[in-house]
Amino acid sequence: MRHVVIIGFESAGLTAASAARKTDRTARITVIERRSYAVYHPCGIPFAIGGEVPDIGRLVEPASPLENVDVRTATEAIALDVRNRTVEVSAIRARRPESLEYDALVLATGSYAFKPPIPGIDLGNVHSVKTIEDGQAIISALRRAKRAAVIGAGPIGIETAAALRERGLDVTIVEALPSVLPGMLDPDMADLVAKLLRGKGIDILCGQVVQEIRGDERVRSIVAGGQELPVDLVIIATGVKPEVQLAREAGIELGESGGIRVDKYLRTSAADVYAAGDCAESFCLITKRPILSQLATTAIRMGKVAGTNAAGGEAIFEGTLNTVVTCAYGLEVASTGPTTHSAREAGIDPITGRIRAMNRPRYYPGAKPIVVKLLVEPSEHRIIGGQVLSTEGTAERINLLALAIKKGMTVEELAQIEYCYAPPVSDCIEPLVVAAEAILRKL
Amino acid sequence: MRHVVIIGFESAGLTAASAARKTDRTARITVIERRSYAVYHPCGIPFAIGGEVPDIGRLVEPASPLENVDVRTATEAIALDVRNRTVEVSAIRARRPESLEYDALVLATGSYAFKPPIPGIDLGNVHSVKTIEDGQAIISALRRAKRAAVIGAGPIGIETAAALRERGLDVTIVEALPSVLPGMLDPDMADLVAKLLRGKGIDILCGQVVQEIRGDERVRSIVAGGQELPVDLVIIATGVKPEVQLAREAGIELGESGGIRVDKYLRTSAADVYAAGDCAESFCLITKRPILSQLATTAIRMGKVAGTNAAGGEAIFEGTLNTVVTCAYGLEVASTGPTTHSAREAGIDPITGRIRAMNRPRYYPGAKPIVVKLLVEPSEHRIIGGQVLSTEGTAERINLLALAIKKGMTVEELAQIEYCYAPPVSDCIEPLVVAAEAILRKL
Repeated sequence: MRHVVIIGFESAGLTAASAARKTDRTARITVIERRSYAVYHPCGIPFAIGGEVPDIGRLVEPASPLENVDVRTATEAIALDVRNRTVEVSAIRARRPESLEYDALVLATGSYAFKPPIPGIDLGNVHSVKTIEDGQAIISALRRAKRAAVIGAGPIGIETAAALRERGLDVTIVEALPSVLPGMLDPDMADLVAKLLRGKGIDILCGQVVQEIRGDERVRSIVAGGQELPVDLVIIATGVKPEVQLAREAGIELGESGGIRVDKYLRTSAADVYAAGDCAESFCLITKRPILSQLATTAIRMGKVAGTNAAGGEAIFEGTLNTVVTCAYGLEVASTGPTTHSAREAGIDPITGRIRAMNRPRYYPGAKPIVVKLLVEPSEHRIIGGQVLSTEGTAERINLLALAIKKGMTVEELAQIEYCYAPPVSDCIEPLVVAAEAILRKL
Repeated sequence: MRHVVIIGFESAGLTAASAARKTDRTARITVIERRSYAVYHPCGIPFAIGGEVPDIGRLVEPASPLENVDVRTATEAIALDVRNRTVEVSAIRARRPESLEYDALVLATGSYAFKPPIPGIDLGNVHSVKTIEDGQAIISALRRAKRAAVIGAGPIGIETAAALRERGLDVTIVEALPSVLPGMLDPDMADLVAKLLRGKGIDILCGQVVQEIRGDERVRSIVAGGQELPVDLVIIATGVKPEVQLAREAGIELGESGGIRVDKYLRTSAADVYAAGDCAESFCLITKRPILSQLATTAIRMGKVAGTNAAGGEAIFEGTLNTVVTCAYGLEVASTGPTTHSAREAGIDPITGRIRAMNRPRYYPGAKPIVVKLLVEPSEHRIIGGQVLSTEGTAERINLLALAIKKGMTVEELAQIEYCYAPPVSDCIEPLVVAAEAILRKL
């Protein structure tokens, strides 16, 4: 009987366990998870801070949803011996190590919040937005906090800034790069998001780094771009780093991104050891470069592949377009594929087109604007990226674009896709088609 | 200078004129349209009846939106001479015919409401839902009407039934086939729609034909399935027929569906005469059978091809999956590709899977159910059809499925598509993926 051991039980680990169970009905499957509860939903934390999710406890599921999988919570993987195929684990309270033999092991150790080396970052009321405990600490701080700084304008930074503003705080976002959501959006699209946020009273300082966080026990101000801003709460939203300590100490190879290097079967450099999710290196379907995807959806797709293969199946992970959506004040912001900047860095100078359309016929009350930007590589006119902003239907449209990109579709083909229309739902010309036609006029 | 003449100015004619203009900037383009106004939006009529569109006049655009195209409204095409490449046209009031020479001609004559041969169908207060005048007549009748029968449970029938019910009428839908939306949905999916409608107080008689419409000047009852139902308004929603009189009289070949036969360039049997939209025969991408698509979106896609080719370009119409969405009481009902019944008629016995999921995480307030049914052909596991019901994100998901089908994707591939996730927008497992996995478990 095969023994599959999975280290970590977030998106990748959970999916890997489920896929392994489906692939081999008889295998023994053991999951090692440091947390005291089985499952939690980190992407919900900003919305628990904002109050849309009325109780942060809803983001925690004490028990594993998987049948016939031995999930050991409050247990740590201490050392991995890839030659002898054993992993030393220990219940955190007991500190009595046990050695588990495995036939296949999946590293799904996830990531940890990156804390940039800013003086004062360890002061009180300076929090990341990664764990339930982070979320609880921020919610507790809300009672007395009046002014917050959010460092980093990625999805979590934007969502948390909007949440804090909704809670009545004065909020300043500080982003080192020149525009918000820099990994997702071109600057012209990002400006539309920044305008919305500013309209809601959020200050945004782009192209500025935080030089210092000042205070005694608790934060009292930050210094950014030479200016001192009084704040009593600081959110660190500068991204996450792959949790690779166990892998590194076991001599498993890391990639240039800092994540665990894997092949398309998600095999690491150690025999029968797989890696999936935030701890593993992915690669961009367009630029073919190694990247850290660090999305729950990528972790799920990788977990499925790693779990299937660890249980003796054969699945392939084909890379990612980093298809992502974020939401603030009802505006859905979604993107897939590289931005113009990252495409150029990879040697592709895309032709771009941006359109604004309505999501329903103009005569139908409540029609909402939708902005679509497409990126097309100039030689064969293949679509390589898309960015969509609207109050609805954004995620589904970006998913369609991700499929079109994956399938190597040209902008000419996109202009001819079949779509449906009914006045309460959609307009008779699909905005994605309008965007494709806008680019065709430039070719 | 090339002269392109287009007969008809609804979805196909308008798009053909626009595409011809873009293809040849110097061509002379003439459009002949019987109506006194340039553009109207027939799909909006049920929603003007229901009051969502507060004024039916909003569905009419008096002027053509196209620049540099000679749109002659209130003008009829009387005879087409394909040998001499002339079409005789006449302003309806003047009745002074003029002969137009053309280099290329596009028949975009559309369709007319089909009136089944039921005794009494010409009584007062018996209306189709095709023209603005139909819509106005129904709206006028609302003032005194108390009980309506809707004959036909296709999209227009369902939308109009819901509209009349919203206006306070007692409504009975009579459908000859065994379930509602028979061209769109399998019976199990249709039952969910029927349940919603019944819950709103609409009576539905499926598998029943209307034998007679009774009354003096105005309708007073219908007889269906041997029963007499008192009604004072009858809606005929039994579909449309292609308007082919001009083509037939010109000796142009018709297809087995009754529409004008065309090749993939949308050329008819007459040299330099194209056809597009409801008057033209299309074909199903899956069954390869000729069909009448009769959707505005198909008309637009055909119009683009016919207009491009008529102006000297080269475009191909690749057929249709009849991707369609309808909406009643906020429920969006969408489908693409054949139903199980129509697939079997074409010799494909599909494997099907139906799932119910939530469109957002369960912990996020306001998560709504979504039901997805997929049809997969059994030999290569290619997806051939999809049906989706939800209160949002339905049309965009069916558009994605239409693209997946067009690209020949297997259900295995669909289970691995990339998608995005944020709690206010979507769940971390996309319902289309859940549906694909449900089918994989059956294979």
